[in-house]
Amino acid sequence: MPGTTQHSDLYPSRGQQTARLTERLDPVVYAAPNSPGPLSPAQVQAYESNGFLIIEDVFTGESLQTLQDELERLRLHGAQTYPQQTITELESGDMRSMFQVHQHSPVFRQLAANPKLADIARYLLDDQVYIHQSRVNYKPGFRGQEFYWHSDFETWHVEDGLPRMRTLSMSIPLTRNSENNGPLMLIPGSHRQYVVCEGETPDNNYARSLQKQEVGVPGDAQLSQLAEQSCITAACCNPGSVIIFDCNVMHGSNGNITPDPRSNVFFVYNAMSNQPVAPFCNQPPRPEHLGSRLHIEPV
Amino acid sequence: MPGTTQHSDLYPSRGQQTARLTERLDPVVYAAPNSPGPLSPAQVQAYESNGFLIIEDVFTGESLQTLQDELERLRLHGAQTYPQQTITELESGDMRSMFQVHQHSPVFRQLAANPKLADIARYLLDDQVYIHQSRVNYKPGFRGQEFYWHSDFETWHVEDGLPRMRTLSMSIPLTRNSENNGPLMLIPGSHRQYVVCEGETPDNNYARSLQKQEVGVPGDAQLSQLAEQSCITAACCNPGSVIIFDCNVMHGSNGNITPDPRSNVFFVYNAMSNQPVAPFCNQPPRPEHLGSRLHIEPV
Repeated sequence: MPGTTQHSDLYPSRGQQTARLTERLDPVVYAAPNSPGPLSPAQVQAYESNGFLIIEDVFTGESLQTLQDELERLRLHGAQTYPQQTITELESGDMRSMFQVHQHSPVFRQLAANPKLADIARYLLDDQVYIHQSRVNYKPGFRGQEFYWHSDFETWHVEDGLPRMRTLSMSIPLTRNSENNGPLMLIPGSHRQYVVCEGETPDNNYARSLQKQEVGVPGDAQLSQLAEQSCITAACCNPGSVIIFDCNVMHGSNGNITPDPRSNVFFVYNAMSNQPVAPFCNQPPRPEHLGSRLHIEPV
Repeated sequence: MPGTTQHSDLYPSRGQQTARLTERLDPVVYAAPNSPGPLSPAQVQAYESNGFLIIEDVFTGESLQTLQDELERLRLHGAQTYPQQTITELESGDMRSMFQVHQHSPVFRQLAANPKLADIARYLLDDQVYIHQSRVNYKPGFRGQEFYWHSDFETWHVEDGLPRMRTLSMSIPLTRNSENNGPLMLIPGSHRQYVVCEGETPDNNYARSLQKQEVGVPGDAQLSQLAEQSCITAACCNPGSVIIFDCNVMHGSNGNITPDPRSNVFFVYNAMSNQPVAPFCNQPPRPEHLGSRLHIEPV
């Protein structure tokens, strides 16, 4: 069983640590250079250099409609069936996120295993992959709240015990992600540095952090440093596109006061060789629906 | 003295009113058709049709630097000198807005009277003009909060007693207003309809509404209707540009989690013939720094 013995911490954060930038110790692209795969050499290079890659219009027409219908079905009926997996907006109570959709929704289970996505994950991580976390984010119109800047890896390492950076996310927008409705913003190149954060991890931090993350977020100085090295990029794209991003790229999104929801489905692919160990904080692991420890099977 | 007798209410809102869209009863451009003035016929037409107009790079070089220096001076020292005119962010306590800058700052007093601005106001309103309100908005980086959708006129009518729509605003960005740092968003054409809002005006509403407006905001249905008729436009432009917008155009801005503040200086020009009467709610007028009643002199 994972997570029972203590492992050395290559990416310490929080606790006694002082806020700073440190170097990434792991590759971004694990595939051997120039090995054939599902991405063009230019795409691989862009991913390695920026820490993310947008592939436009991967799902269109009927296949896109199926995903959108499923998103709406979960929004309307998911909260009753899976209350523990459902996060509401702090102020309005609207649905913000629902987790573990690759297990609870046959449509999204199929999507997670779709070779259009999974082949890319296997290629970039050069390993079999499983789903560490999945979710739909709704970011409703009018009152959708921000997701503050963060590196996913910082939380997955500290709170879930993922030892190395051999993990990536794929976000598939299911509504239009325009410049105005709080699109995903990323800092190109930020994945090459690890932002050590300050603060203790509170008990059951996840219960609050999924509404509003306050621990494991970069200090102003570190964020400014990353943003100055680069130019914040908004991932504006059509529904059915795929945004692939490294586990350590700094990202976030502004709130959404437009009437248009900014919704997506989101899978975290982790390398089978990078299974979770004990969390790197004095807390028990987060629940299964936030970081899988029980269902580690290749997609 | 203005505001002492009861006037008929052409734009009722709040109180017993039901949320709905009604027609605007006033012109947008008061200048006689094709009369010569500081704007080109195409600019006048764009303003009339959209309810706003952006003129790029009106202030550059040294004149822009002077305005930016003054902005910074007020940010650093203004709160001590003018605590009542200063609004801080609800959560972070950072400076959000400072009012009445056209009286407290010689630099901004000059700017308000600058013919580059005031001539346009006099032309569009076909009258002498005075400053109903002025302010700087800082919208600091990292934790800048949204300004929810609103028509300025709704508040200026209900709470300040401006009888007619013969008023316009000019916002001069003093930092880069990019798509990512919470730029002003406007709904083109929305100025032709008046959004009647629901809710009572609470005592001293302004004390809270300037941090987060909750009364005098459009209902979801009315906002959706306006947005469907048009396409939300973000006023991204360089510092030193001028955004001119009608008092009744629906506008707002998302929060700002980027490190870059989104700051501007802002003047409300009201026609001398449109001086305030008694507020159209059961409340005394707001304080002088929010809606002038004592210093009504042409700029």
